Amino acid sequence: MKMIAGGVCAAKGFTASGMHCGIRKNKDKNDLSLIYSSVPASAAAVYTTNLVKGAPLLVTKEHLQNGTAQAIICNSGNANTCNANGVEIATEMAALAAEALHIEKSDVVVASTGVIGQPLEIAPIAAGIPALAASLSENGSAQAALGIMTTDTVMKEVAVEFTLGDKVCHLGGIAKGSGMIHPNMATMLVFLTTDVAIAPAMLQKALSGDIQKTFNMISIDGDTSTNDMVVLLANGLANNAEITDDSDDFAAFMKALNTVNIALCRTIAGDGEGATKLLECKVTHAPSEETAKTVAKSVICSSLLKAAMFGADANWGRVLCAIGYSGAHVDVNKIGVSFSSAKGSIEVCKNGAGLPFSEEKAKEILLEKEIEILVELCDGSEEATAWGCDLTYDYVRINGDYRT
Amino acid sequence: MKMIAGGVCAAKGFTASGMHCGIRKNKDKNDLSLIYSSVPASAAAVYTTNLVKGAPLLVTKEHLQNGTAQAIICNSGNANTCNANGVEIATEMAALAAEALHIEKSDVVVASTGVIGQPLEIAPIAAGIPALAASLSENGSAQAALGIMTTDTVMKEVAVEFTLGDKVCHLGGIAKGSGMIHPNMATMLVFLTTDVAIAPAMLQKALSGDIQKTFNMISIDGDTSTNDMVVLLANGLANNAEITDDSDDFAAFMKALNTVNIALCRTIAGDGEGATKLLECKVTHAPSEETAKTVAKSVICSSLLKAAMFGADANWGRVLCAIGYSGAHVDVNKIGVSFSSAKGSIEVCKNGAGLPFSEEKAKEILLEKEIEILVELCDGSEEATAWGCDLTYDYVRINGDYRT
Repeated sequence: MKMIAGGVCAAKGFTASGMHCGIRKNKDKNDLSLIYSSVPASAAAVYTTNLVKGAPLLVTKEHLQNGTAQAIICNSGNANTCNANGVEIATEMAALAAEALHIEKSDVVVASTGVIGQPLEIAPIAAGIPALAASLSENGSAQAALGIMTTDTVMKEVAVEFTLGDKVCHLGGIAKGSGMIHPNMATMLVFLTTDVAIAPAMLQKALSGDIQKTFNMISIDGDTSTNDMVVLLANGLANNAEITDDSDDFAAFMKALNTVNIALCRTIAGDGEGATKLLECKVTHAPSEETAKTVAKSVICSSLLKAAMFGADANWGRVLCAIGYSGAHVDVNKIGVSFSSAKGSIEVCKNGAGLPFSEEKAKEILLEKEIEILVELCDGSEEATAWGCDLTYDYVRINGDYRT
Repeated sequence: MKMIAGGVCAAKGFTASGMHCGIRKNKDKNDLSLIYSSVPASAAAVYTTNLVKGAPLLVTKEHLQNGTAQAIICNSGNANTCNANGVEIATEMAALAAEALHIEKSDVVVASTGVIGQPLEIAPIAAGIPALAASLSENGSAQAALGIMTTDTVMKEVAVEFTLGDKVCHLGGIAKGSGMIHPNMATMLVFLTTDVAIAPAMLQKALSGDIQKTFNMISIDGDTSTNDMVVLLANGLANNAEITDDSDDFAAFMKALNTVNIALCRTIAGDGEGATKLLECKVTHAPSEETAKTVAKSVICSSLLKAAMFGADANWGRVLCAIGYSGAHVDVNKIGVSFSSAKGSIEVCKNGAGLPFSEEKAKEILLEKEIEILVELCDGSEEATAWGCDLTYDYVRINGDYRT
């Protein structure tokens, strides 16, 4: 398997485009994106568990009931959530895209991201869609990735090439993250495309299984969004023998999916609102995977630890504290903690108590942009990893006046 | 009932003192406090649910097994947690205090607060205790309150006077809060004293019941400390008829306790690390008290809402979002939200959808120092209140370099 360019257009038959249609005031920012498959594709999706759900999710769920889709339309700048006419607007978005693409309305996935509770006008979207459809291109992934960004500072696209039998296959995706990121069952917005031939049920199984170890293990701020959605389209144009069961090909596909998703997770976490660092908490030697996940996520979510990482302060007591209140059953007297980065590694806690260490060396390690926090529970052989970011002045600045 | 001065010394027979003994480098800050009852008192306590527990909590739990205590010794600047010799040091603190006061070691409550995982030297404490004991005074509550502060910016003491039968009674307390505040079963450090005569079992019942509606409903940063502890001493010097069951006197005592605890909660939340505002989320018309509590706490804990409140931004979509992921079963289409302060009240959401409102008026309301977020679930008659604070640049600054 190798990483390649092309994002959501890396797989055969997929084109994409993005534009500024006028939902955002800032004309330099795209606010509408389209992804299209030249043939109908198997579709799998997972959604937020937030009880308050964006209207686009309700419409998309209905459209994906038959496991098939051919296009994704997504706007940024407005979440179309908590609006009395939200479903109507989301349905209209799908209908307009379907009309421009000459496909069925029910084969269009709809997504929105932005401010909650402000009416979304259909006019700029309606005016923009014809040009958006006309500009669909095999080189359009970047424009589409730009169109779904909110407070993201970097565009997020990843793709891999791999083989199934003698067929060259591709899987790629784009994502938006940044704030209100603490996915549960699904996550932020991630659109994945592949040319692999795979039955809808296996596609859903692959996605639902993988997100438990990838997107559901990210947290930027503990806030689970109302509009989280991951959609995966598989159009079969790689001409591999269709995957219909738990075969070796399915395992190979899962591996490709996991590779793309972990890469997107790391990009999303590292570009968390205001973040200066990517934090990766790896928990090893746990009695169960569930325990490892619970501990890893609790550490990544601790505001105090996140602020300490911003300050490059090896305050490992906050790691222990976060483990202690995580709800996981662990023997606190066995816990070991190390901090690592490109500058090396330093062990700071063993058997639940502090070790003497060089503050200077710790500072050097923690001043890097990617920090690994290794937690060894010394009570089993399971493990898990979670991703997050530091808590900074800019997170506060961005969220103190996001709306107005 | 009336609010009075005197804090932890308002009740008859209680004296207190505080000093700088040398645990902290900054000589202008007290770091050791003592509270003393002239006679043995009934004692009740609640502790953190964090699996990682400060050594002082383990020692205190043992000492309070007989329901009696006569003194509280507490240091700040070091949590005495995750230290190999922690229990030994905490026991020594109790022994030294007992020696100076000529009481039993097992009648001394020990508490610590500060950095986790740094060895606590007994020397400065041993050197300080004789002077600390010698300076015990009826006017000592403020000095003791200063001695337990960490990043707190204001001293926290409250007291009330009330009557039971024809006896004038008093109940007062001091607290430290500020960071790592998200109590669960117990909370930060709160020391309460009363001269009411009450059986230990009823005292514990009063405390355990009240904290569910008071300290357990505060969150500063979602981090449940390893050293949370609330201790309540009742020495009986008010000479009321001893409370031994669920009588009218018990109800009157509960009311006094709740009054003092709510006042301390508001002070702790309003003085959260870096906070510029006290946030009070009141949830009404809920199907159950549990639902109301879950919703209120989720709103208060949302980093995004906290940042919006810092920016005086009426971003009510974040309130809806936090309700949606709270885990409570609510009908999101019935929810109403209003923001209030001394400048008035503004309704921003009804039946789960936005209402048109004056941004100018909303800004004026949210620029105040105490904000009430009223959430009406319109699905029952139960209610609950939670307290928190805004998320500010200063929270990040304080916690980016707290330890070094």
